[in-house]
Amino acid sequence: MSTKGIARPRVGEKRPPGGVDGRCPAQTPGATAEQDTAHTRLILTNARILTMDAALTEHDPGWIAIEGDRIAALGSGTPPDGEHLDMGGDLIMPGMVNPHCHMPMTLFRGLAEDVDDRLFRYILPLERALVTADVVEVGTALAALELIRGGVTTVADMYYFEDRVGDVIDAAGLRGVIGQTLADFAAPDHSTMDDGFARLNDLAARFADHPRITASAAPHAPYSTGLDVMARVAEWSAAHPDLPVQMHLAETSDELAWAEKTYGCTTVEIADRAGILTPRLVAAHLLYPTEADMDLLSERGVHAAHNARANGKAGRGIAPVCALRARGINVGLATDGPMSGNILDLFSQLAPASMFQKIAGGSRKPLPCRDVIRMATTEGAAALGMADRIGSLEPGKQADLIRISLADPRLHPIYDVYSMLTFATMPTDVRATMVAGRWLMEDRHVSTLDAEKVLSDALQVARRFNARIVEIDATAT
Amino acid sequence: MSTKGIARPRVGEKRPPGGVDGRCPAQTPGATAEQDTAHTRLILTNARILTMDAALTEHDPGWIAIEGDRIAALGSGTPPDGEHLDMGGDLIMPGMVNPHCHMPMTLFRGLAEDVDDRLFRYILPLERALVTADVVEVGTALAALELIRGGVTTVADMYYFEDRVGDVIDAAGLRGVIGQTLADFAAPDHSTMDDGFARLNDLAARFADHPRITASAAPHAPYSTGLDVMARVAEWSAAHPDLPVQMHLAETSDELAWAEKTYGCTTVEIADRAGILTPRLVAAHLLYPTEADMDLLSERGVHAAHNARANGKAGRGIAPVCALRARGINVGLATDGPMSGNILDLFSQLAPASMFQKIAGGSRKPLPCRDVIRMATTEGAAALGMADRIGSLEPGKQADLIRISLADPRLHPIYDVYSMLTFATMPTDVRATMVAGRWLMEDRHVSTLDAEKVLSDALQVARRFNARIVEIDATAT
Repeated sequence: MSTKGIARPRVGEKRPPGGVDGRCPAQTPGATAEQDTAHTRLILTNARILTMDAALTEHDPGWIAIEGDRIAALGSGTPPDGEHLDMGGDLIMPGMVNPHCHMPMTLFRGLAEDVDDRLFRYILPLERALVTADVVEVGTALAALELIRGGVTTVADMYYFEDRVGDVIDAAGLRGVIGQTLADFAAPDHSTMDDGFARLNDLAARFADHPRITASAAPHAPYSTGLDVMARVAEWSAAHPDLPVQMHLAETSDELAWAEKTYGCTTVEIADRAGILTPRLVAAHLLYPTEADMDLLSERGVHAAHNARANGKAGRGIAPVCALRARGINVGLATDGPMSGNILDLFSQLAPASMFQKIAGGSRKPLPCRDVIRMATTEGAAALGMADRIGSLEPGKQADLIRISLADPRLHPIYDVYSMLTFATMPTDVRATMVAGRWLMEDRHVSTLDAEKVLSDALQVARRFNARIVEIDATAT
Repeated sequence: MSTKGIARPRVGEKRPPGGVDGRCPAQTPGATAEQDTAHTRLILTNARILTMDAALTEHDPGWIAIEGDRIAALGSGTPPDGEHLDMGGDLIMPGMVNPHCHMPMTLFRGLAEDVDDRLFRYILPLERALVTADVVEVGTALAALELIRGGVTTVADMYYFEDRVGDVIDAAGLRGVIGQTLADFAAPDHSTMDDGFARLNDLAARFADHPRITASAAPHAPYSTGLDVMARVAEWSAAHPDLPVQMHLAETSDELAWAEKTYGCTTVEIADRAGILTPRLVAAHLLYPTEADMDLLSERGVHAAHNARANGKAGRGIAPVCALRARGINVGLATDGPMSGNILDLFSQLAPASMFQKIAGGSRKPLPCRDVIRMATTEGAAALGMADRIGSLEPGKQADLIRISLADPRLHPIYDVYSMLTFATMPTDVRATMVAGRWLMEDRHVSTLDAEKVLSDALQVARRFNARIVEIDATAT
């Protein structure tokens, strides 16, 4: 199947002259800000602009000037000269940042829903038997399509065959962090930890100069790597200070029991003993940290990725997001994999994230809407070490933005635009998505992927999965 | 403003010959099943049909034959003769039933979000000063538009000026229960309880023969009516055994404290003492019933309306839905008013309802997806006393159905269609909505309401509300 569903050439293939995608030369690795200014200025006008800068500045009606892959300027009043594009009063905000995902697992979406032991009964056997590099590419393309359509412009992934995940993210035009999973259970792409690290180093080398893709180490979790491997990752990370590390942490009660039994302490403390708690770490979930754990995480500058829907669906309780934030810990909002959270847009995470904290706090006040939107934009960017480049609309930052139609009556009246985004906006309200100055979607049409082929390839794989599930069920009875 | 936004004539106005809407004569009050069979048979073909009958029968590909306002037959295989309409493989399921709403409050949507005392600070003063019959009509039209677009075909409302709510529901073509609110605080449409009951009786008389609209008594809550008024409602209800009663019950901690202080028992026990706990009662919320309360509710055959998002947003905790259902109590899924839950479609309630029970139960298992869909269809219908007419697609029942597009990649693969509906489907995936054999929306275009005028009227009212809010804030500081 390879790249059937992907309209653009892959990394490493011959490209048309003029840049990665034949349209926006500034995306070519090595392009500089000086070069950018030579390009046409695109001015988006007549928009309601939420900048998500520190002061939450809004421009309404506002304009935003884009040069190459960057935001040159923005404001209200008369727009400057350039190629004007009227936004018709639509909302423009930063593209959302999803700092924890397993993109290829779209292929498992909705499988064995409500079944408690589905991981061991279905998912791991299916992964071992059927997940190849080609399958990963197919699942990633389906995820990329959904991310673009749902207003996510940056995604952090951790799975297997991440070079192929990187290829698809590149072809789709998204911005991404690709994480080589390291685990001591049998993985589809490596059989020893040395193999795993070799893959990780290849990944880091291959995407070293890519303007939109960043390699990352992704030890699965303390209980599935152990102290030694975490320590080896910590060492690797110290040698690669510009690359993030991703790890599940304090996610399950089994994990706590394992740490207590094996080391007589918490799983967060084990991770710290391995030296992996640094400002480069994005810790996914953090459902069960103790007060002392949270103090430690804050002291070490660790970032969190909160996966509201996935946590809720698993019945694992409510992550202490407000307690983490109160300690100054940066918390990005994420989706987890589509097997866990089903869908990959962040709009669907906003209301659950807010409601869970209000339920836990017994009041309407915790985690107000503007903080929820910060988590989906600036704080996700900070989690991935990209706060200086993305997450808000400010001069000099990358032009990663989304255009949201305000046409649906469900959105009105708008007394508070952050409430509207949190509790009423759907991913389908996203009308256009831009990454690095390039439109990946306009009027709901994704230009970088062949949607029909992507879906058809995915359904073909799903049929193979289904056949294996029937076999598993037949064997079990 | 009156009916500016409503394209169809109101109840009581002169109608074009041939029926309420000039299209489907069977909707005329008094039409009988015998008359219906004379009309054209519309056959929806090539659909994936979820009947939501007791056996959860599916027909894929299936057809459904509609005669007048009713379903004549449905099945798989070769469709019978008639006017065929190819559904292109889309999903057909029963229109959803929203058994607890305050439609006119769309006008308050998102106002003072995250503010704990917003009810007394903003909402009640605004209601007293600005909510007139015309305002109610404007807000209801905005709600009706959203309900149709989101796949809700039956809605139970409780607010003020419910005759005007009924007019809008009628003109929109929806099915509805309209509840005259009775409360001992100053209400916009009655100053004494006698006035309130007079309005209730007028409402019941006016809509007595309406095929789609049912009047209802809606005492606000035990603490805001008191034992005597609840007893008077119980007496009224015994004299009107075909009409439902709606009441908020066990919703707030203040309510529990009031009951304990005033009567030395629970709020559910007070309601029972008044004689209002009958199979005609839809009790909204039931967040805090005791075990004994739940036994009592079960014994009395009371129905519940669960408002997941509104409860979550208010930080009021998780309603014991599984414990209620385990006792055989019928629980419909509802939205509450848009001030509390912001949006009025049930798709947005499905995931929260499921997640909340899984969180409370500490496992992936509680409230599986098919039960969530039952709550949004058959159980909502049963709550309103309409189980014999709506909620599932079966011969002889009303043709209330929705067509859901499966085009979005976010929905695939579909291992489990109930999981897809619960965790991945958006209200915007609803492509067409039919009530009583009449299309209210096709290809996302609502034919019964002038969407542009509805929205423009609503924004005009919102500007008046906003001006008053500025005054309130100025006075407070």
